[in-house]
Amino acid sequence: MSSRQKFIPGVLGGMGPQATVDFMAKLVSQTQAQCDQDHIRILVDHNPGVPNRHEAIAGDGSEVKAALVDMARRMERAGADFLLMVCNTAHAFQEDIRVAVDIPFISIVDEAVSALDTRASHARRIGVMAAEGCLAAGLYQNALEQMGREAVMWSDAELDQFMSIVYQIKAGDAPDQLKLQMEQLAQVLVERGAEALIAGCTEIPLVLGDSDILSVPLLSSTDILVSRTINYALGDIALPIQ
Amino acid sequence: MSSRQKFIPGVLGGMGPQATVDFMAKLVSQTQAQCDQDHIRILVDHNPGVPNRHEAIAGDGSEVKAALVDMARRMERAGADFLLMVCNTAHAFQEDIRVAVDIPFISIVDEAVSALDTRASHARRIGVMAAEGCLAAGLYQNALEQMGREAVMWSDAELDQFMSIVYQIKAGDAPDQLKLQMEQLAQVLVERGAEALIAGCTEIPLVLGDSDILSVPLLSSTDILVSRTINYALGDIALPIQ
Repeated sequence: MSSRQKFIPGVLGGMGPQATVDFMAKLVSQTQAQCDQDHIRILVDHNPGVPNRHEAIAGDGSEVKAALVDMARRMERAGADFLLMVCNTAHAFQEDIRVAVDIPFISIVDEAVSALDTRASHARRIGVMAAEGCLAAGLYQNALEQMGREAVMWSDAELDQFMSIVYQIKAGDAPDQLKLQMEQLAQVLVERGAEALIAGCTEIPLVLGDSDILSVPLLSSTDILVSRTINYALGDIALPIQ
Repeated sequence: MSSRQKFIPGVLGGMGPQATVDFMAKLVSQTQAQCDQDHIRILVDHNPGVPNRHEAIAGDGSEVKAALVDMARRMERAGADFLLMVCNTAHAFQEDIRVAVDIPFISIVDEAVSALDTRASHARRIGVMAAEGCLAAGLYQNALEQMGREAVMWSDAELDQFMSIVYQIKAGDAPDQLKLQMEQLAQVLVERGAEALIAGCTEIPLVLGDSDILSVPLLSSTDILVSRTINYALGDIALPIQ
């Protein structure tokens, strides 16, 4: 590990697999480095086999909880100093993870929402682009409300469209064909009054990185988690107390 | 973990970081999958902080050995069933890894060389595109000789050019500008009599994937390791006995 790195992140990943690769690629490209040794060490449990999170949130979720706790403990055993998870929806089970380990857990939802303060400080109405289970668990709605902001949401039909795109991404369909559909679903929230958007699903940046047509800031939860992970690892910002 | 997966690979990675991301991206894209749960679970110690391997091979290497053994033990502790390493040069220290753990270690060099049997069975003279420390340790030369094949090598000046490209890739320089130079270094080996080429450095596919100008097969050690990792994880081929 490089001498400037203070803490080793443990990544609960693979949900989906492309999203974790995207996270790692961005972690590497966003780290200021001239040689291998300048980069950040991370430990990863890339486990795409975690059962469907949306079904788990609709049901009792015991299998998903057990899988996530197992992953968290493996990362702790391997020597991770703190944990993070590259999947917004799985954060519905974050309390089960927190109580299972003795190291801090960084929430992608909290990091994304807190980034609004610098990236879109005046925005009060925030469009939430997130998946079925994530919305059903109220993760973004609650986090926004606590900050005095309001979530702008999709209709059920729009959410169905979003889930269809997500499953197409996971099945390996061509991103180019899906970008326009994703952009339209973002635009719907702008037309409904959103002054900023959060891409609160790690599949979104796999098809929609930058957008030319959106008139409001689009915050990628993946990008924010990447940036904060680097900060926490280098000790530039303090880890929360477990 | 999906029910079809039998064993969890533990990846010693981060050497360099882009190469491990490339390995993981290819692992995901080459797995036949329609949903998250069809994909392969892997554990990764992505540790770019391992000291320079070329200097280690030229010296006593104790720091690199200690780092690799630490990584291997972390992956074993996290529950890996077998180990692999996304860096050819670091295989100079593979014996130190093997004796430190109780799980099998898969060699990228052995896998790449054995793939010649199916991908370039008639080729006797094999161009070895590999880095300074990898060549100094004789990893490919010895493996080829054991198979009755002959290594076709670069001159010292050509190897210096290669190392310069490798360090430029690690520093994040534009791949497009480096592809042509890498292709020319491949072509040199063909002109010297190579009937097939092995890209025996995981930085190579970051700039040179397919080539239109090369008249002989170019085997990527990364691609071969990806394919074999999937095979070992699914139990399609038997793991070596530790």
